[in-house]
Amino acid sequence: MRVLGIDPGLTRCGVGVVDVAPDRTATLVDVVVLRSPAELATPGRLARIADGLEAIVEEHRPNAVALERVFARSDVSTIMGTAQISGVAMLIAERRALPVALHTPSEVKAAITGYGRADKKQVGAMVARILGLEAVPKPADAADALALAICHAWRTGGVAGAAIADAAASPRERAAAASLTPAQRAWLAAERAATVSGAARRVKE
Amino acid sequence: MRVLGIDPGLTRCGVGVVDVAPDRTATLVDVVVLRSPAELATPGRLARIADGLEAIVEEHRPNAVALERVFARSDVSTIMGTAQISGVAMLIAERRALPVALHTPSEVKAAITGYGRADKKQVGAMVARILGLEAVPKPADAADALALAICHAWRTGGVAGAAIADAAASPRERAAAASLTPAQRAWLAAERAATVSGAARRVKE
Repeated sequence: MRVLGIDPGLTRCGVGVVDVAPDRTATLVDVVVLRSPAELATPGRLARIADGLEAIVEEHRPNAVALERVFARSDVSTIMGTAQISGVAMLIAERRALPVALHTPSEVKAAITGYGRADKKQVGAMVARILGLEAVPKPADAADALALAICHAWRTGGVAGAAIADAAASPRERAAAASLTPAQRAWLAAERAATVSGAARRVKE
Repeated sequence: MRVLGIDPGLTRCGVGVVDVAPDRTATLVDVVVLRSPAELATPGRLARIADGLEAIVEEHRPNAVALERVFARSDVSTIMGTAQISGVAMLIAERRALPVALHTPSEVKAAITGYGRADKKQVGAMVARILGLEAVPKPADAADALALAICHAWRTGGVAGAAIADAAASPRERAAAASLTPAQRAWLAAERAATVSGAARRVKE
């Protein structure tokens, strides 16, 4: 399963492409940070990022797109740009019949590090370890995009277009888990525990 | 000058096309409210609205696009959809080399009714009067899109792609005003006064 992860942004848009095998092994295909100059008007900036996203989709032909779910932040101008780019990214995916899934930052952190409140450094270090990279991808937007892509493949069990699995393990997930190494099973358990508590937190918020 | 006004929204997206002559006379070309069903996932909804916007651009070939400038609102899910649609609309315009201008709701109200805090009913009634329509365009998203288009043409003096004029009248604006009827001049004065005070208010906010 090939996943395109996108950390949406108008100034810097992280884009990562990852292949994930059924045994959850992940390999890096491509990673890039698309940028648009602040001097340009917003429509021009959006088109610049859209051109880059389309070029990556054409080149790597992913099976699915994973996007960060954007929440309200303190800076209104940032959230507007982020939401606009996420709209553009969704349109690009939809017009190529690519399934799109949204994951919250805490879901991504939980999936990658086993801890929903991990910091950027921990996420970057785990991304490098999972993908067998010698260095942590920089800037953080690049690592975040890769983390999103890995998170998506792991949460859906590597099935392109699959719905996000419920917190409770499905029979298929349990069967998949049976073929994992002990270390992978430990990750899966930690990931699920973190996801469950993350989901519970969100409901309370 | 033909202007496409867009009141962006995921559930209802108001779209109005207006021709505005150099003497500020405005005529209705088309008005429609694009909708997307809430049952659809967001990417599908964005594509539905994008298809509608592209069809209107192809059919009516506007010289400029006027979009409502979106601010933070209380409802986060609404602002996200609105921002995503505005991103998609800007991309569509940019890829056809159409200039895009953003106007705040109070700028539109001031331009159309002479009063930046006019209510929806007053804006609708003035839009109908300006365009010589027998009934107020419904729903409000339709009237708002037309108001945006008229506002844009009037604020830029009917010059496609013109930068938004400063609050102070330029020599060209003054020359244009000389060819207006007394009633039109009264509107222009009221509009300018409202815009100036509106701008002052925004700075203080």
